[in-house]
Amino acid sequence: MDVEARRAQLLAAAVDLFGHRRPEDVSIDDVAAAAGVSRPLVYRYFPGGKQQIYEAAVLGAADELIGRFAVAAEGPPTERLSAALDRYLAYVEEHAPAYGALLGGGSVAETSRTSAIVDGVRRRAAEQVLHHLGVTRPGPRLAMMVRSWIASVEAVSLMWIDEGREPSRTELRDWLVDHFTGLLLVTATTDPETARAAASALPQETPTSPAGTLLTRLTTLTPAAAHLFDKA
Amino acid sequence: MDVEARRAQLLAAAVDLFGHRRPEDVSIDDVAAAAGVSRPLVYRYFPGGKQQIYEAAVLGAADELIGRFAVAAEGPPTERLSAALDRYLAYVEEHAPAYGALLGGGSVAETSRTSAIVDGVRRRAAEQVLHHLGVTRPGPRLAMMVRSWIASVEAVSLMWIDEGREPSRTELRDWLVDHFTGLLLVTATTDPETARAAASALPQETPTSPAGTLLTRLTTLTPAAAHLFDKA
Repeated sequence: MDVEARRAQLLAAAVDLFGHRRPEDVSIDDVAAAAGVSRPLVYRYFPGGKQQIYEAAVLGAADELIGRFAVAAEGPPTERLSAALDRYLAYVEEHAPAYGALLGGGSVAETSRTSAIVDGVRRRAAEQVLHHLGVTRPGPRLAMMVRSWIASVEAVSLMWIDEGREPSRTELRDWLVDHFTGLLLVTATTDPETARAAASALPQETPTSPAGTLLTRLTTLTPAAAHLFDKA
Repeated sequence: MDVEARRAQLLAAAVDLFGHRRPEDVSIDDVAAAAGVSRPLVYRYFPGGKQQIYEAAVLGAADELIGRFAVAAEGPPTERLSAALDRYLAYVEEHAPAYGALLGGGSVAETSRTSAIVDGVRRRAAEQVLHHLGVTRPGPRLAMMVRSWIASVEAVSLMWIDEGREPSRTELRDWLVDHFTGLLLVTATTDPETARAAASALPQETPTSPAGTLLTRLTTLTPAAAHLFDKA
């Protein structure tokens, strides 16, 4: 096996172990046994031991996730968001429960380096969302809005893994896109920059895009809200 | 000083230190010096040393936060949510940066006990929100919706502390309430249980309650969205 393939094999074995046991309970011997190699061989590839393997696993997951955010800048923005989220949730599904162990936080194997890697994923996700909204240097409210939605996506992904992946990935994706659209619209009612972003995004939506169907669905709630528009 | 007062004094000194330095960089000597007492006295109150003080500090913050969620079950639900959030954000503001150190996660001083305490705060917050929606045993979608909003509130609170508490507490509170209302409404378009909760909450809102003003504000976005209702 060549160097890269061997390294990838050891890393895959470690990621699998991290997903099934707390990272602090995984030893180099476990990694060696799972990969069917000797302990010294593991150390040859990862002289820093388990901490180095853990960091490499977090970095690998981060690179893979960041790659999944990239979608072409064409079509209704909520369709693009849906496509990116679909790839993100596919990763979460394929790699659960390692996703939680590597990106969910709360592990004693976390270091300032792994926290910085995870923060980097959040930052790239936020940049992608803003890019599709046509914004490069967001003001504080718009930036906070995007980051709070990303925090929700992470929290929901962890709940979803914990709870046997219910609802289906498609339903979850559609709901998270609705969540984004709803948050964008409510934030647009008080923040001028977000209002400009919404005003530029909405004309790109269609009656059948996620934002289009959401707005149509929302009108079914109108009867219960009609009295709120009475300016008596 | 009596036993309770001395214990509270030592804890307050520790909480202050945890807020200004990473918990792992705070020693028992630091706590003793900050409280103006001897190291053996600190150990008399906290025989488990720093870990015990840290856990007591997390528990104290959790109890205080949980107490702030309680609001009377009268008036428009979004006014109640606004009152509870106001008290929550006041705590965050008064106790920043200790709020982040104790409840923000990512500290090596975290243990399964402190994580369980923090999870308990989230659970109580979710119960309170559901209580005001008239729901005691939520289905999976409604439960996930409430928990994802709470995750956003936590993430936003940490960002708010990090970024010099901009926008103002009132603006942040109002935006988080709008966020909740928006999320409830979009979730109601696909989940029947959430639709029932929304249908029972909306008649309790008024034109001047947070939900009432949000819906009025949202109508200003209508021109950019008009084409989405064309069923051509």
